[in-house]
Amino acid sequence: MRPSGRDFNALRQVSIETGFSRHAEGSALIRMGNTEVLCTASVEGRVPPFMRGQGEGWVTAEYGMLPRATHTRGDREAARGKQSGRTQEIQRLIGRSLRAVVDRKAMGEITVTLDCDVLNADGGTRCASITGAYVAMVMAFRKLRTNNVIKSMPMIGQVAAVSCGIFQGNPVLDLDYAEDSGADADANFILTAAGGIVEIQATAEKYTFDEASFNALLGLARKGTMELFAAQKAALG
Amino acid sequence: MRPSGRDFNALRQVSIETGFSRHAEGSALIRMGNTEVLCTASVEGRVPPFMRGQGEGWVTAEYGMLPRATHTRGDREAARGKQSGRTQEIQRLIGRSLRAVVDRKAMGEITVTLDCDVLNADGGTRCASITGAYVAMVMAFRKLRTNNVIKSMPMIGQVAAVSCGIFQGNPVLDLDYAEDSGADADANFILTAAGGIVEIQATAEKYTFDEASFNALLGLARKGTMELFAAQKAALG
Amino acid sequence: MRPSGRDFNALRQVSIETGFSRHAEGSALIRMGNTEVLCTASVEGRVPPFMRGQGEGWVTAEYGMLPRATHTRGDREAARGKQSGRTQEIQRLIGRSLRAVVDRKAMGEITVTLDCDVLNADGGTRCASITGAYVAMVMAFRKLRTNNVIKSMPMIGQVAAVSCGIFQGNPVLDLDYAEDSGADADANFILTAAGGIVEIQATAEKYTFDEASFNALLGLARKGTMELFAAQKAALG
Amino acid sequence: MRPSGRDFNALRQVSIETGFSRHAEGSALIRMGNTEVLCTASVEGRVPPFMRGQGEGWVTAEYGMLPRATHTRGDREAARGKQSGRTQEIQRLIGRSLRAVVDRKAMGEITVTLDCDVLNADGGTRCASITGAYVAMVMAFRKLRTNNVIKSMPMIGQVAAVSCGIFQGNPVLDLDYAEDSGADADANFILTAAGGIVEIQATAEKYTFDEASFNALLGLARKGTMELFAAQKAALG
Amino acid sequence: MRPSGRDFNALRQVSIETGFSRHAEGSALIRMGNTEVLCTASVEGRVPPFMRGQGEGWVTAEYGMLPRATHTRGDREAARGKQSGRTQEIQRLIGRSLRAVVDRKAMGEITVTLDCDVLNADGGTRCASITGAYVAMVMAFRKLRTNNVIKSMPMIGQVAAVSCGIFQGNPVLDLDYAEDSGADADANFILTAAGGIVEIQATAEKYTFDEASFNALLGLARKGTMELFAAQKAALG
Amino acid sequence: MRPSGRDFNALRQVSIETGFSRHAEGSALIRMGNTEVLCTASVEGRVPPFMRGQGEGWVTAEYGMLPRATHTRGDREAARGKQSGRTQEIQRLIGRSLRAVVDRKAMGEITVTLDCDVLNADGGTRCASITGAYVAMVMAFRKLRTNNVIKSMPMIGQVAAVSCGIFQGNPVLDLDYAEDSGADADANFILTAAGGIVEIQATAEKYTFDEASFNALLGLARKGTMELFAAQKAALG
Repeated sequence: MRPSGRDFNALRQVSIETGFSRHAEGSALIRMGNTEVLCTASVEGRVPPFMRGQGEGWVTAEYGMLPRATHTRGDREAARGKQSGRTQEIQRLIGRSLRAVVDRKAMGEITVTLDCDVLNADGGTRCASITGAYVAMVMAFRKLRTNNVIKSMPMIGQVAAVSCGIFQGNPVLDLDYAEDSGADADANFILTAAGGIVEIQATAEKYTFDEASFNALLGLARKGTMELFAAQKAALG
Repeated sequence: MRPSGRDFNALRQVSIETGFSRHAEGSALIRMGNTEVLCTASVEGRVPPFMRGQGEGWVTAEYGMLPRATHTRGDREAARGKQSGRTQEIQRLIGRSLRAVVDRKAMGEITVTLDCDVLNADGGTRCASITGAYVAMVMAFRKLRTNNVIKSMPMIGQVAAVSCGIFQGNPVLDLDYAEDSGADADANFILTAAGGIVEIQATAEKYTFDEASFNALLGLARKGTMELFAAQKAALG
Repeated sequence: MRPSGRDFNALRQVSIETGFSRHAEGSALIRMGNTEVLCTASVEGRVPPFMRGQGEGWVTAEYGMLPRATHTRGDREAARGKQSGRTQEIQRLIGRSLRAVVDRKAMGEITVTLDCDVLNADGGTRCASITGAYVAMVMAFRKLRTNNVIKSMPMIGQVAAVSCGIFQGNPVLDLDYAEDSGADADANFILTAAGGIVEIQATAEKYTFDEASFNALLGLARKGTMELFAAQKAALG
Repeated sequence: MRPSGRDFNALRQVSIETGFSRHAEGSALIRMGNTEVLCTASVEGRVPPFMRGQGEGWVTAEYGMLPRATHTRGDREAARGKQSGRTQEIQRLIGRSLRAVVDRKAMGEITVTLDCDVLNADGGTRCASITGAYVAMVMAFRKLRTNNVIKSMPMIGQVAAVSCGIFQGNPVLDLDYAEDSGADADANFILTAAGGIVEIQATAEKYTFDEASFNALLGLARKGTMELFAAQKAALG
Repeated sequence: MRPSGRDFNALRQVSIETGFSRHAEGSALIRMGNTEVLCTASVEGRVPPFMRGQGEGWVTAEYGMLPRATHTRGDREAARGKQSGRTQEIQRLIGRSLRAVVDRKAMGEITVTLDCDVLNADGGTRCASITGAYVAMVMAFRKLRTNNVIKSMPMIGQVAAVSCGIFQGNPVLDLDYAEDSGADADANFILTAAGGIVEIQATAEKYTFDEASFNALLGLARKGTMELFAAQKAALG
Repeated sequence: MRPSGRDFNALRQVSIETGFSRHAEGSALIRMGNTEVLCTASVEGRVPPFMRGQGEGWVTAEYGMLPRATHTRGDREAARGKQSGRTQEIQRLIGRSLRAVVDRKAMGEITVTLDCDVLNADGGTRCASITGAYVAMVMAFRKLRTNNVIKSMPMIGQVAAVSCGIFQGNPVLDLDYAEDSGADADANFILTAAGGIVEIQATAEKYTFDEASFNALLGLARKGTMELFAAQKAALG
């Protein structure tokens, strides 16, 4: 029995609301159960110095968590003066995941920065960030396309992410905090609608696991991301 | 004529929604027109080292702005590695303003931290933060009272804040960004429902101003905060 | 009775000595009683990147306190690796105050940096910094005028600052440390010789205050700054 | 054809030399081809504050690269004042991997810190670090056992790591820099001698990949780590 | 001919004024020509953690330069967020030099911090700092002795410092900035009144030098410090 | 009797191995007894901003110590976020010492960065760094000469360094850690093969010392560096 009473292969309730941010070129407020992440896509008409003159665009991401998104208040990273290793790891993952579905040559020399800020946390924030950031990014590219800044949509795939894990010996889909904090193992799957693997991060927490378990998790992730792809499409109209 | 078409003494539409944060002891999402600030109050059962053993509580505040709360994306302070002078100035102001309406002896040795995070910015974020933080703080104290952590409510006043300014020669209430960025002068008034002045910060932007103008601004602030006190009461039920 | 025995409307003894710094384009060592601040004005033949090409100059300020300017030694900010919120707040105030009396177009694209370093502290250091920095800045502009770097003096006003407060229920002028640390409320007034208000920062410390009290403080500040304007003129010869 | 001429399933030449560090409780200099990493295990008789009083030990890792371990000199992280996101990600991975094979209760309240410093880099440094750190850690535990600091060896598994990737369409084992920088996809496998999965990180670089490819990589990793387990055992005598 | 017209073996005019700082336990404003350094000695009733419980005191130093102490304005280290290597080197030297003349057991577990802040710089600031800090430290110990915090004066020597150099081929005493910036070689000598060497730092700037030159510099330093010892004694009354 | 049993004027066993680093333009792994330092010379085809356009090259150095090069593990400076004062002092010394034997005009506008990383520490690491860095630098210049990047070798001298000290009252050559930590005084001598003094840093540790002792130390340093010059020549072939 899962703490939430969900079936082993059930996602939490998902909603994706576009346009929450009044200024960003694209934005999506994604909710997966009690996890809520505000994803914005900001466009800048140039690329970082190390990429100039190559005729390609850049997609990057930053991640943050409001201090009281969590059960007990966490330090504000801006006040502490540095981002944690966890934060950096997550924002690097988001950036890689989104770059995997963009033709950067088709972007031209512009930068899209995806800011994913967790307003409420209940597990799975990095996966929700990727799923929401995809929507925000598409919104931003549409705006650029409408304004003729780009000639065609540079998307070459649709990406979403979900975490799965082994909880009390059973593979389950879309861990919430109660499950995540006590899982035997967990894994984040970043997959494309075309069936490709963008990234897999699987980690033994309490016990090492075998290939059969791993394959069960991957199977759940396939199912879960199918539903997320549908939610993204619905949000994008 | 104001850019928004508002009367010179009209506040923007105000709403205060409690309970947005799922984990915080108290929270308020305040909207003043297009400015939206999420205020949370977090309670910790001890005080900072410099206050230990004095039998008094502490109230402090932190302020942040999501990178894309603004027209153009701002640097993430956590990534830059330090909070700007503006951020520090604002969070110090919020902390002082809230401490002014609390009997810290009645708190006992606990700390309330008010986090004010701007989700969308359209001028007046520090004033909205103070007005919203008051609601979040009262919610937190109510919860502590219910749980018998404190014996009585330690509130000794009700505080709210509003900015006024001289725009194209005329005193106006509750500047939005379009006015704020072109004002001759502006002023933040932090006032109590009992009529007391907690803090005034009045600054010449384009031109110095005289006492008559200053008094006109103070009069507008009295009117504006009366409406904010009512909105706070309504939110607190 | 004030701790110092001064009348409620009496400034401390003021002296302003120019030329203490051997290298700066302008400098003033200001003493207000036991508070001593060394103010230097340094000229650089360019403006910060965000202002280039606009044909305007820039005036900025930095503030510091020697570790043992105070009763007990404070941390050296350079050693701690960052400036406190208080320091940043003060240096931002000094910069705004001085910019209010300069025609930046008349400066051309140069930067004047005002460094205000407190050698001995006995209350009122930010106000003394502003009053002294005015003198240092005028000295620097005179030197630039003499050397034909600028065609005319870009000063459009004379600025000085003084703190007032409510001490044991009574409004008093020019708080020293003994008063400041126990005041009911205090306020910093930055005024021009022409009668304009540049900035007001009024803060309830122990108790909120009403408009009548506020007006009494403003009246004292008018009197005090009149004397400071005279002292500035005398120092400038 | 691989740039190095190796078979698709061939490791580079591996050597593990113990005792290079004169002071560390355990140390291993691991070479995988031209990649060389010095791994030391340092023991401290206490645990970090968040773990005190629980009767368990702690294993943590730090990773660094000498500035000129690479083709072009990289910034020294100590001089830049912070560790990169990549560095933090790697050292967190090393720590997790080693903790997976230790019974922390059996350690008692001591901390083992694994420092992995890359002297020469030619791809695969994080995997070499894990494989070498295992040897250094066992050496340290043996010393503690000999000195009766611990009553039994707290090892509950043997861990090693290897990277695999898809290079020019073909799955290959143990990527060197020439392959790594041009791979279609790469994956790091951290496995135990008992056949368990500790961690998998698989990333599409140029193209997304499918499950068949992923399984091919996992098969190669099984073969590679078998050889690494043998090399570890030989080094440990 | 020296730029200043001084004889090769002539110090600049030296003055040491005690009591400039109103709060410090001891203070000395030392002037060597146009170099002016404010030295304060602050006493704290405990020692740093690494020294606790050993019954010995600690003497340490911090050094700073006001931004416009120099010909062109330097960055404020507090604003830049770190002390330069030069600053750290100097403050370590000052601390070592003063510790060399103190019996730390006789101090008991107290800390004396020597702050040396350069108000005007014209070469030789580290040597002036040491010479002035000695006076400030003795003043502080006298005060502690008067208050019976210590039972006897813990001084075991008198220390002063002077720089010498080879300027246009000739050994000269007490380099000012004009000489220092063009010297062939320079050396700082920290000597005791009893004839002991505390520290020598000799550096070839343009050319390496031989032992004969070095000995000539040491001879000059002997003469110069004799005069400084007399100035210290005069200042201490 | 020295702890190592060496004669008072005996160096530890010295070896210098070139080519340890696979990528650096020049490298030397120097061992002096149990002290081992990896020195690399990296060439970059430009100079720092402050030197551009002057037609001269630049030589600079960075120094580091692996966390477990020492008896007890030291903090990793990259993790702590700053280099210690000791580190900065040492790397500034190495840079000055190497620049003293290079004709920077003959280099052209290139930068040589010398990285000295201590793998094992047993005293004398800064001196070993200088002696080894000389070899690495010559290797790099030879490579540049071979590739016709420079027209002639820019070396104008040969430099080596050794520490001497007064141990239990007796002057001894080449202090190891056991001696260094208990020495009465120690001194680092950086000398050239032509007999010139590049830098001397002599410090009283327990007791001040006199000229006769100092001269004895210098004599030992002459002898020791003669042997080091021979070892450098042998390593350079």
